[in-house]
Amino acid sequence: MTTATLDRPADAPMTAIQPVPEAEAEVKTKDILIIDYSGDLEKVWATMILASTSAAMGVKTRVFVTFWGLQVFVKDQRRITGENWMQKMLSAMQRPGISHRKLSKMNFLGMGPWMMRKLAKQYNVASPKELLEAAQLMGVEFIPCQMTMDMFGLKPEDMIEGMGEPAGAATVIGLMTEDSIPLFI
Amino acid sequence: MTTATLDRPADAPMTAIQPVPEAEAEVKTKDILIIDYSGDLEKVWATMILASTSAAMGVKTRVFVTFWGLQVFVKDQRRITGENWMQKMLSAMQRPGISHRKLSKMNFLGMGPWMMRKLAKQYNVASPKELLEAAQLMGVEFIPCQMTMDMFGLKPEDMIEGMGEPAGAATVIGLMTEDSIPLFI
Amino acid sequence: MTTATLDRPADAPMTAIQPVPEAEAEVKTKDILIIDYSGDLEKVWATMILASTSAAMGVKTRVFVTFWGLQVFVKDQRRITGENWMQKMLSAMQRPGISHRKLSKMNFLGMGPWMMRKLAKQYNVASPKELLEAAQLMGVEFIPCQMTMDMFGLKPEDMIEGMGEPAGAATVIGLMTEDSIPLFI
Repeated sequence: MTTATLDRPADAPMTAIQPVPEAEAEVKTKDILIIDYSGDLEKVWATMILASTSAAMGVKTRVFVTFWGLQVFVKDQRRITGENWMQKMLSAMQRPGISHRKLSKMNFLGMGPWMMRKLAKQYNVASPKELLEAAQLMGVEFIPCQMTMDMFGLKPEDMIEGMGEPAGAATVIGLMTEDSIPLFI
Repeated sequence: MTTATLDRPADAPMTAIQPVPEAEAEVKTKDILIIDYSGDLEKVWATMILASTSAAMGVKTRVFVTFWGLQVFVKDQRRITGENWMQKMLSAMQRPGISHRKLSKMNFLGMGPWMMRKLAKQYNVASPKELLEAAQLMGVEFIPCQMTMDMFGLKPEDMIEGMGEPAGAATVIGLMTEDSIPLFI
Repeated sequence: MTTATLDRPADAPMTAIQPVPEAEAEVKTKDILIIDYSGDLEKVWATMILASTSAAMGVKTRVFVTFWGLQVFVKDQRRITGENWMQKMLSAMQRPGISHRKLSKMNFLGMGPWMMRKLAKQYNVASPKELLEAAQLMGVEFIPCQMTMDMFGLKPEDMIEGMGEPAGAATVIGLMTEDSIPLFI
């Protein structure tokens, strides 16, 4: 697996996202909370790079995935999700899964995302999917938004393995007021 | 009125966004500051859900509304706003008011937002307008950006009732450095 | 140079973004960290207004510029950047430089941004470029993302004068957990 973070020069050894020993981690008192709202390729990348780096540095890291962001955590092989026709149409119009993300602009019938992925590979930057797997291995908690699951008709079996228990806005506000530093991405 | 937050199961009693007794609220020492920059339906929804939940939990909550976000707080019945032709054209091209928001994508001539609103109703999720009213009742302070009001030619009488005094970037920075936790949405 | 912040009425003296004497600044204990992710005109404006106001108030201010945001800091006169054909095409499809930003919507073949700039001038709001220069003069640190520079094939000589040393996600997480208040814009 190719893993890379923003800090590692292209030819450096791949140590950047290894977990930090617990003793060192105890110095940190604050947690990181990413509210992952967007399903766009570039924002998913930002979320995964920040979350995996944060966990690698020994910081307790949570990602609350909501709205378009939740589509990213549907299994790649799922094509149509939802129970009623509106939910099915929403998934039909925008394919779920982390391997099917599009850029927010410059898509040019898929050429933009294709070039991004090719450039990333050339410069040893891990794909969003690889970073997600690394993040999960390092203990990042991905928390799905219950309301989004309801509205889009997503069931636990639609989602990738290892997701946390669904939660809501009160959990987000609770974490924010208890020393989690939030980023709304 | 149907009110709902992310945490409440569809069939639970509607207590989630009731104000918390003051004694309990005093434990919280941090405030929440949302910088509401976007006029897109899904982001307005996120702002309103987080702001109303936060206020219901007894956390002092402020929303600084700026740029496209300010259009949301123009009265729904106002069609054309502004003083000069450019300001009038900007309002003509994008209808102001909280009931006229569009999704950032998947609009499909209005079908996307229509389906979202229908799904929300089906799953007992309050509309942005209902959440805004609940937020105001629970004491959320909505602060309009003075510079945006100037640039778009918006007058106090164009805005909904109950907005705070217009302010600017210095107020935002001041709050951020004095224990308000910011979210830029 | 016309400089303006959100707090200054159109006819007020231009003192809003003057540096605050150091003695006063020492009271502040927290720093501001803006993660500048977007290249859209309105978001660049928000970044520059917040960064320059923050610095003027004596708050240590850093802006981490990444992904589309980094294109903004390429010299205005550079037309094509990058080393391989994909990088060159990306710059060809979206012109870099702070003077060539587009709105995220309502572009209408350039009329939207033109009207915005005209309205801003009329109401004495400084342009993004003027605010950037003021921010740099007041000591705002602009830190380019190393990974983005690699992926887009940007070299130090492509960038405007006065940028900080390239850094990465670990720097961002480090600042966030050490009392910098982050905004992801």
